[in-house]
Amino acid sequence: MNIQDTICAIATAQGGAIGILRVSGPDALTVTDRIFRPTGTNPRPLSEREPYTLTFGTIVDPVTSEPIDEVLVSLFRAPRSYTGEDATEISCHGSSYILQRVLQLLIRYGCRAAGPGEFTQRAFLHGKMDLSQAEAVADLIASTSAASHRLAMNQMRGGFSRELAALRDQLLHLTSLMELELDFSDHEELEFADRSELSALTRRIEEVIRRLVHSFRMGNAIKNGIPVAIIGATNAGKSTLLNALLNEDKAIVSDIHGTTRDVIEDTMVLNGILFRFIDTAGIRETSDRIEALGIERSFKALQQADIVLLMYDLERGETAFRSFYDEVAPYLQDKQVVLVMNKCDKAAAPSSLPSFLDASGCHWYPLAVSARERLHIDELQSLLLRLAAIPELSAADVIVTNLRHYEALSHALEAIRRVQNGLESGLPGDLVSQDLRECIYYLSDIVGEVTTDQVLSNIFSHFCIGK
Amino acid sequence: MNIQDTICAIATAQGGAIGILRVSGPDALTVTDRIFRPTGTNPRPLSEREPYTLTFGTIVDPVTSEPIDEVLVSLFRAPRSYTGEDATEISCHGSSYILQRVLQLLIRYGCRAAGPGEFTQRAFLHGKMDLSQAEAVADLIASTSAASHRLAMNQMRGGFSRELAALRDQLLHLTSLMELELDFSDHEELEFADRSELSALTRRIEEVIRRLVHSFRMGNAIKNGIPVAIIGATNAGKSTLLNALLNEDKAIVSDIHGTTRDVIEDTMVLNGILFRFIDTAGIRETSDRIEALGIERSFKALQQADIVLLMYDLERGETAFRSFYDEVAPYLQDKQVVLVMNKCDKAAAPSSLPSFLDASGCHWYPLAVSARERLHIDELQSLLLRLAAIPELSAADVIVTNLRHYEALSHALEAIRRVQNGLESGLPGDLVSQDLRECIYYLSDIVGEVTTDQVLSNIFSHFCIGK
Repeated sequence: MNIQDTICAIATAQGGAIGILRVSGPDALTVTDRIFRPTGTNPRPLSEREPYTLTFGTIVDPVTSEPIDEVLVSLFRAPRSYTGEDATEISCHGSSYILQRVLQLLIRYGCRAAGPGEFTQRAFLHGKMDLSQAEAVADLIASTSAASHRLAMNQMRGGFSRELAALRDQLLHLTSLMELELDFSDHEELEFADRSELSALTRRIEEVIRRLVHSFRMGNAIKNGIPVAIIGATNAGKSTLLNALLNEDKAIVSDIHGTTRDVIEDTMVLNGILFRFIDTAGIRETSDRIEALGIERSFKALQQADIVLLMYDLERGETAFRSFYDEVAPYLQDKQVVLVMNKCDKAAAPSSLPSFLDASGCHWYPLAVSARERLHIDELQSLLLRLAAIPELSAADVIVTNLRHYEALSHALEAIRRVQNGLESGLPGDLVSQDLRECIYYLSDIVGEVTTDQVLSNIFSHFCIGK
Repeated sequence: MNIQDTICAIATAQGGAIGILRVSGPDALTVTDRIFRPTGTNPRPLSEREPYTLTFGTIVDPVTSEPIDEVLVSLFRAPRSYTGEDATEISCHGSSYILQRVLQLLIRYGCRAAGPGEFTQRAFLHGKMDLSQAEAVADLIASTSAASHRLAMNQMRGGFSRELAALRDQLLHLTSLMELELDFSDHEELEFADRSELSALTRRIEEVIRRLVHSFRMGNAIKNGIPVAIIGATNAGKSTLLNALLNEDKAIVSDIHGTTRDVIEDTMVLNGILFRFIDTAGIRETSDRIEALGIERSFKALQQADIVLLMYDLERGETAFRSFYDEVAPYLQDKQVVLVMNKCDKAAAPSSLPSFLDASGCHWYPLAVSARERLHIDELQSLLLRLAAIPELSAADVIVTNLRHYEALSHALEAIRRVQNGLESGLPGDLVSQDLRECIYYLSDIVGEVTTDQVLSNIFSHFCIGK
């Protein structure tokens, strides 16, 4: 990880009115000065100007004197910049031709083209943020709903880091008590740390870590969306229902790229919560075995769903539903299934049915709607929100959204439980201490204090270039 | 055209590391202050800070106190800003969710969402640039080759405007001489302006306008690309040739959107010149009339081409070529046709043939190549450049690239020619003066001095939002 050189990158997407190039490193100002001519009466180069100022001027190819663009340059000096280094940002007209030309000039005069996430990586390496905050930057950019935005924002602003720091303080306190005991362990009569007091402290720590580990299920649902499968017989009105749901969409962002990689899915943001509608087009009442592959994929998708919308066509009656239902029933165990009785405008629906739990552990929520006439779609949305069971989060709530953090916390939880057992079973202090150190190690890994270069590279390689 | 209010827009494309919001108008600073909290020890609002400075802080929803993003705000004061108004630019994390949230907050506190090009329109209306310079901003953003970039840059920096201003000075001088004559026209013995001198001046003006009018053919080719059609019998190697050309591409920008709207075409930048390869897939040696529609479209495309690459498969010999050639021959009149004798690695090519002009006015340039083995592809590229006949342009060259300017200049040319004829045929001064005023009118139209609101709206509606 070379952080001695000066890096540059285009930091905006292609196609806007404005394009930004970012330069960071010891030579950021002098390299920018090589290709930048200030406009107006003040000819001072950037390296002689005040930080946190804007200078208007022209990017010029020093060899040909050709003007490339009229730009605004933002100037930053270490350590008061995003990366903690000297830095400039060049605001150009949003032409990718121009941005490429300026990038090439910067490289010609000594910059290196930055890799993905390299600016944020430098911010981490210069101590501007810890690793969990750096990871939150990527989450923030990818956030598409109010809830995922709020979690990323809190994590970036250090909410999670502070919770971890408090935990580690308690663990270090515990360790020092344990090790004090250890130092005097040859004096058998001495037991400085009261083991019942140590046990109580350990229990409190275990409780906090356990809460964080358990929050991941919700954090993951918020970050990646609540998976919802819509299934039903052909012509039950699946796509009409989906359209009715999406058209009533309160989403700010409808065009969500990158949240789902492999399957084409529809997404909807409802009250700030992202729902992913999983494609189950392959599930049909047909017994045509040639479609087996598609059907298998659909059943797999069904298994991932937290919520299933099972469509029942009131017009066609129970027989059509039964033949289809028998095929999917084995996959509905322990799921929340909304029985969407569609076409209630055309055929009578049974008077309001209560929700119930069947023998397989499947929760049923019957609801009569008309997808075409948009009747009771609001109720369906309310039900979806209720079943998603995402509580209103405050800015202070710490929720784990990152798989790496979840895994580290799970290891930490195992370790603290070993500590607990050790204390209770009267294990020697040095063995208990070892588990304690392991617990601290995993927490330190989250904030990047003991993290290997390989893990760091892997984390930042998932960032976009220019961030 | 309301320029009393404060406008805002997202100025970057979706998907980058950084996203920029732009705010301009009398309330730009106070509205931004409503939602912005500076970080650090200096709590002063933006409205009390120095222009051309950057302030780091947090965008906060004032109602819920929810932090939306950590941002940098650039501050500008009238008239030293792009629009000539008070303005801010808010640099956010590049999440479209965040950018939309901030946009909504700006609107909630008094901004109006800007229409396309509205920032540049304000710059024009506040006298920061004339209309031809404003139009060059859009061209600059769309520029995809060195040549089109250079023309747009020169126009934006006022090269064209200065040429027009010089012309208008001369025309006004001519007018004043004419009107001096007019004032004394009842004294028949007096003729203040020497008509032969007026004629000479008129000729010089006519020459400049004529040169500008004629430059449009080249300017248009530079801006929109040189249209090149590749045609040939099936299996003559058209797509292999195209790949060979594109792979040797010296283009900086390969992904060019928006330059061609309706037909899917391949483009290549060679020595800074854009070539557009027109799809002529429909032209085949088949006589299948069901394909008539596709064939007709292809022939139409062929007619638009400046250069035609006519492919001849050396392996298949003259007979296969003849049957195909007869069909396209009528469309080749007055065109520059490169006879690409392909597969020269497999079959002997005739020893180097000279170029020649046939009876239909078609220029032939025979060249043996192997598309597959990439033999003589360099020569083909050199030939394309030679046939495109775009001279090396200096930054000072004024070339007309805009259809509106071309039309105005054509009208101006007609008017100055009427002046010329009037002077030569001894027409009364007041009639000649009228034509002179018309000539000036058309030049003033280009820079936006006499342009109607409707024309202005039309021009700026083709800009992107945020510019």
